[in-house]
Amino acid sequence: MKRIGVFTSGGDAPGMNAAIRAVVRQAAVLGLEVVGIRRGYAGMIQGEFLPLGPRDVANILQRGGTVLLTARSQAFMTEEGRKKAYENLQQAGIEGLVAIGGDGTFRGAMRLIEEFRLPVVGVPGTIDNDLYGTDYTIGFDTAVNTALEAIDRIRDTAASHERVFLIEVMGRNSGFIALDVGIAGGAEVIALPEAPVDPRAVAEVLLESQRRGKTSSIVVVAEGAYPGGAEGLLRAIRSHAEVEARVTVLGHIQRGGSPTAKDRILASRLGAAAVEALVGGTSGVMVGEVEGEVELTPLKDAVERKKDIQRALLDLARVLSI
Amino acid sequence: MKRIGVFTSGGDAPGMNAAIRAVVRQAAVLGLEVVGIRRGYAGMIQGEFLPLGPRDVANILQRGGTVLLTARSQAFMTEEGRKKAYENLQQAGIEGLVAIGGDGTFRGAMRLIEEFRLPVVGVPGTIDNDLYGTDYTIGFDTAVNTALEAIDRIRDTAASHERVFLIEVMGRNSGFIALDVGIAGGAEVIALPEAPVDPRAVAEVLLESQRRGKTSSIVVVAEGAYPGGAEGLLRAIRSHAEVEARVTVLGHIQRGGSPTAKDRILASRLGAAAVEALVGGTSGVMVGEVEGEVELTPLKDAVERKKDIQRALLDLARVLSI
Amino acid sequence: MKRIGVFTSGGDAPGMNAAIRAVVRQAAVLGLEVVGIRRGYAGMIQGEFLPLGPRDVANILQRGGTVLLTARSQAFMTEEGRKKAYENLQQAGIEGLVAIGGDGTFRGAMRLIEEFRLPVVGVPGTIDNDLYGTDYTIGFDTAVNTALEAIDRIRDTAASHERVFLIEVMGRNSGFIALDVGIAGGAEVIALPEAPVDPRAVAEVLLESQRRGKTSSIVVVAEGAYPGGAEGLLRAIRSHAEVEARVTVLGHIQRGGSPTAKDRILASRLGAAAVEALVGGTSGVMVGEVEGEVELTPLKDAVERKKDIQRALLDLARVLSI
Amino acid sequence: MKRIGVFTSGGDAPGMNAAIRAVVRQAAVLGLEVVGIRRGYAGMIQGEFLPLGPRDVANILQRGGTVLLTARSQAFMTEEGRKKAYENLQQAGIEGLVAIGGDGTFRGAMRLIEEFRLPVVGVPGTIDNDLYGTDYTIGFDTAVNTALEAIDRIRDTAASHERVFLIEVMGRNSGFIALDVGIAGGAEVIALPEAPVDPRAVAEVLLESQRRGKTSSIVVVAEGAYPGGAEGLLRAIRSHAEVEARVTVLGHIQRGGSPTAKDRILASRLGAAAVEALVGGTSGVMVGEVEGEVELTPLKDAVERKKDIQRALLDLARVLSI
Repeated sequence: MKRIGVFTSGGDAPGMNAAIRAVVRQAAVLGLEVVGIRRGYAGMIQGEFLPLGPRDVANILQRGGTVLLTARSQAFMTEEGRKKAYENLQQAGIEGLVAIGGDGTFRGAMRLIEEFRLPVVGVPGTIDNDLYGTDYTIGFDTAVNTALEAIDRIRDTAASHERVFLIEVMGRNSGFIALDVGIAGGAEVIALPEAPVDPRAVAEVLLESQRRGKTSSIVVVAEGAYPGGAEGLLRAIRSHAEVEARVTVLGHIQRGGSPTAKDRILASRLGAAAVEALVGGTSGVMVGEVEGEVELTPLKDAVERKKDIQRALLDLARVLSI
Repeated sequence: MKRIGVFTSGGDAPGMNAAIRAVVRQAAVLGLEVVGIRRGYAGMIQGEFLPLGPRDVANILQRGGTVLLTARSQAFMTEEGRKKAYENLQQAGIEGLVAIGGDGTFRGAMRLIEEFRLPVVGVPGTIDNDLYGTDYTIGFDTAVNTALEAIDRIRDTAASHERVFLIEVMGRNSGFIALDVGIAGGAEVIALPEAPVDPRAVAEVLLESQRRGKTSSIVVVAEGAYPGGAEGLLRAIRSHAEVEARVTVLGHIQRGGSPTAKDRILASRLGAAAVEALVGGTSGVMVGEVEGEVELTPLKDAVERKKDIQRALLDLARVLSI
Repeated sequence: MKRIGVFTSGGDAPGMNAAIRAVVRQAAVLGLEVVGIRRGYAGMIQGEFLPLGPRDVANILQRGGTVLLTARSQAFMTEEGRKKAYENLQQAGIEGLVAIGGDGTFRGAMRLIEEFRLPVVGVPGTIDNDLYGTDYTIGFDTAVNTALEAIDRIRDTAASHERVFLIEVMGRNSGFIALDVGIAGGAEVIALPEAPVDPRAVAEVLLESQRRGKTSSIVVVAEGAYPGGAEGLLRAIRSHAEVEARVTVLGHIQRGGSPTAKDRILASRLGAAAVEALVGGTSGVMVGEVEGEVELTPLKDAVERKKDIQRALLDLARVLSI
Repeated sequence: MKRIGVFTSGGDAPGMNAAIRAVVRQAAVLGLEVVGIRRGYAGMIQGEFLPLGPRDVANILQRGGTVLLTARSQAFMTEEGRKKAYENLQQAGIEGLVAIGGDGTFRGAMRLIEEFRLPVVGVPGTIDNDLYGTDYTIGFDTAVNTALEAIDRIRDTAASHERVFLIEVMGRNSGFIALDVGIAGGAEVIALPEAPVDPRAVAEVLLESQRRGKTSSIVVVAEGAYPGGAEGLLRAIRSHAEVEARVTVLGHIQRGGSPTAKDRILASRLGAAAVEALVGGTSGVMVGEVEGEVELTPLKDAVERKKDIQRALLDLARVLSI
């Protein structure tokens, strides 16, 4: 293998740039050329390729977003589109790919492998932490800390006004962000897709909190935890009890920002490991970190198997919010 | 004068605690006792008083929110409520008040002055910066920086996905936060109540930006700038042109957090000045900072006169976003 | 067991308050009373005890430092001092202790166990991460991120002036902070006690970096990595080659600040686990987190066994800094 | 005038990039071409010129440091060097310059004006705020907030260990940073070049603080306030009284980081105003902001006249630290 491609796809996540940098520099050390593909699968079809040397990735380690850009691609859903993508890669002399992203990214990669026997190794880059085969995904730690900082701010107001706040955090169908943010933020209630809450019970907890002398409360709601999100949950709570509360949806601020140390280190490590795997002849796997060690997991498993939240933490949250 | 009261009321603002600390310590230096009144006018009626000495306000300078809490009070809207409040103040030996808050707070203070000849001096504590008689209100600088940090994060995503984002910031009927955040955040468009935007023109600006090679754009929208806020504006834009865009409402994160240096200094200065004014026999005024100097403005003017935004900055924004 | 004591000792670490909160609330759920001991072993001897209920630890989760204070105690080094401490504990009805701190704290605890058969469970609270039996200590993640933020700032200047900066970080005799900060900060060289650097080789790396087109470089130096720290290393480098460089010693800023999500969660988990262990009849152990699970390690091992840095990361650092 | 040059020189300051962006975009709006000169006067002599269009300054508004780099130049101190610089500028068709920096930068500019009648307008970019003719220099607000954040962190440790900390901040011969940071950080003592402290008096204040029940104290020391800085002051204090204290020198972290809203707005405004002044035929002046309005001040005055600190704030600091 002489030349590999690297791209980011799906929602951007802090640390993607650190991963790109690691891919480029590890490849250079191993004597490989690297081609950056802009805009993910869309750019693959459009042939948006640029050579990347070690100096080209200077000073991006600390930046949020992705310098390679990301986009959705309808064309890649078609056989014709994928064929065009592959032809472009071939023409550019790209013999293997490092794909940085989440489940959509990996599903695309699996098609390339199946249809064209093109070697691809995946790197888990998504704030949602919803991939099997890695304890943490790149971007998760930053997103959690960003959401936490927001909750710390809101708590100032909640405490000053003695109010209840429902705060909706990201995570699609997973509660990883909500669970960590809820515990770290001292939430009275944490609503997760994996552990659905009963609005009646939430109402009871909030009223009971007040009886115990708590004058303000924070409820952290994962976006997929209740129909209609935090707003929907509040309406349901109010149908059971008179609770005065405000809703804040944290939204896109959770995606951006300079990555934390943990995300930069994880991205550096996995970016380098992906190149090593690819050069070593491996394909169809995601590199992840499991209990401190780099591990390879078939892309199929990474995408399809369900990683569960740490349920012990849910119990802990209950204890700590008394 | 031997004993004064201090309270916060209305929406909380970063720096309120710094102002409370300054009131208490300046009063102590002048030989006055200070009584903290919890929950604003509501606590005045309930008699929620606590003595505050210099050590009681240690370590609050850097905290967001207000340690004296804040609340709305329906009872204070009634003559009976205000009478009760006054009686409580009298009974506690409170001969004058420092009222920290925004226009609602000051309107309440004006009633106390009118009806009971109780001396009150106001301190401008609101993130909205919408009070006449001070260049900046306490909390404004922090809110602007918090919103700016959020926009910096969102820009990472906007740039990576090459998208347009409409970001709604606070400010009630004023565009101060939106204008400063818009310029500092490099917004392509800034929509203010004081300078209403035409959705058709915004659509044109965004399309023109794309033609000039900008792949992502930020539109900052003051909450009072358009019916329905940022969401409303986006709907209107879309009725004129096909613009793919996302909306983020920053919400309550703008209220909290540790105050900036500027807000702490302003709060310290105005808190101390309020006590000096009160002791000097002044009442019915707000202390403010105008061109670097402390100035007194009748509460009536502070509340009723309109402080205009710096229109030169709007022109600057247009130049800088080419 | 009906009543336990909790204290912090040694250098303060972000997350100590989160641990105190978890101890108090977990104990309350289990029906135990908690007594807070101020100023560590010094306060134990002085009898500085205060009862702590669930409401007393409200709103401390997010705060740096320790609300229970910490101090050095010469008196506790004497048999007489320890006897007095034990008598005070007995008199207060304290039947077991949760000791939050580092190796000095645990050595003190071991004396109490040995001499008076008083049950003690340790919680690892130190930014240095130098305790065996836990993957991370409470405060480490925050310290790393604080140091990283400082390095990101310094890099702005280093890049603008095209200079070399040597940045000294904390860690006593361990290189954990330096290693993580070095990788996350994109350092060209990382000097650790566990992997001593040769000044001549560092000079060569810096000159070689310049030849490869790097105009600025960051060298991260653990305080124990070289005699005289970063200043000493720079002098030694300069005796080999003419390198223009600046030194910055980050110092005490690394200890403070609001804890990260990870540190709050770790502290919450270990604080709660310590109470459970104590109640379950365990003593003489430290609760730690190993590969995601709570584990107990004899205090003696925690203190005496050497936890090694991840050497794979050192190699990674070399690859990434090309 | 058809083409102008822009450069940064001297110590880097947050907001320099925002100023560069404003210069380039305002110039473009006025139909001028802009040439960026790298490395200040050194690059002028070396002919390091690059054309800058509106797209070239995209996405730099929020970055610390300066994308144009900065350097010291011995060569520019010689007549020969300056002649070479001027010839290069002429050859590049540069008819006027915008010089962003501090007093050294402006002194250089004055030589170019005198010797070659080259029009130059200065923009005050320095964290020290030591230029006459502007209420604030670009970078000052960011430096103050960075130092303040560091002090907030150190206070956690100071309070937990009940210690005295002396914290040295930047500012060369001026106390602006120290004064603002001292008030905002709640310092017990603030040592400034403009208001020298007597070590014996400081010792007395610290001891008196302890008697009043303060268990920890912060002393903010401007680097030029005492021979040997904070270390020197502590030695002197100790020769008068036994005070246990630690010293932290904040150092270069104060220079970097993303600029605050205020610095970005100031830089945007002054960068644009500098181009307008230059185009309008003005030379030999610095653009500044005085009481909210843009004002022009002769470079000679900007550099030579002394801007005094707000002495009222020093009194305030004394009141607030009781």
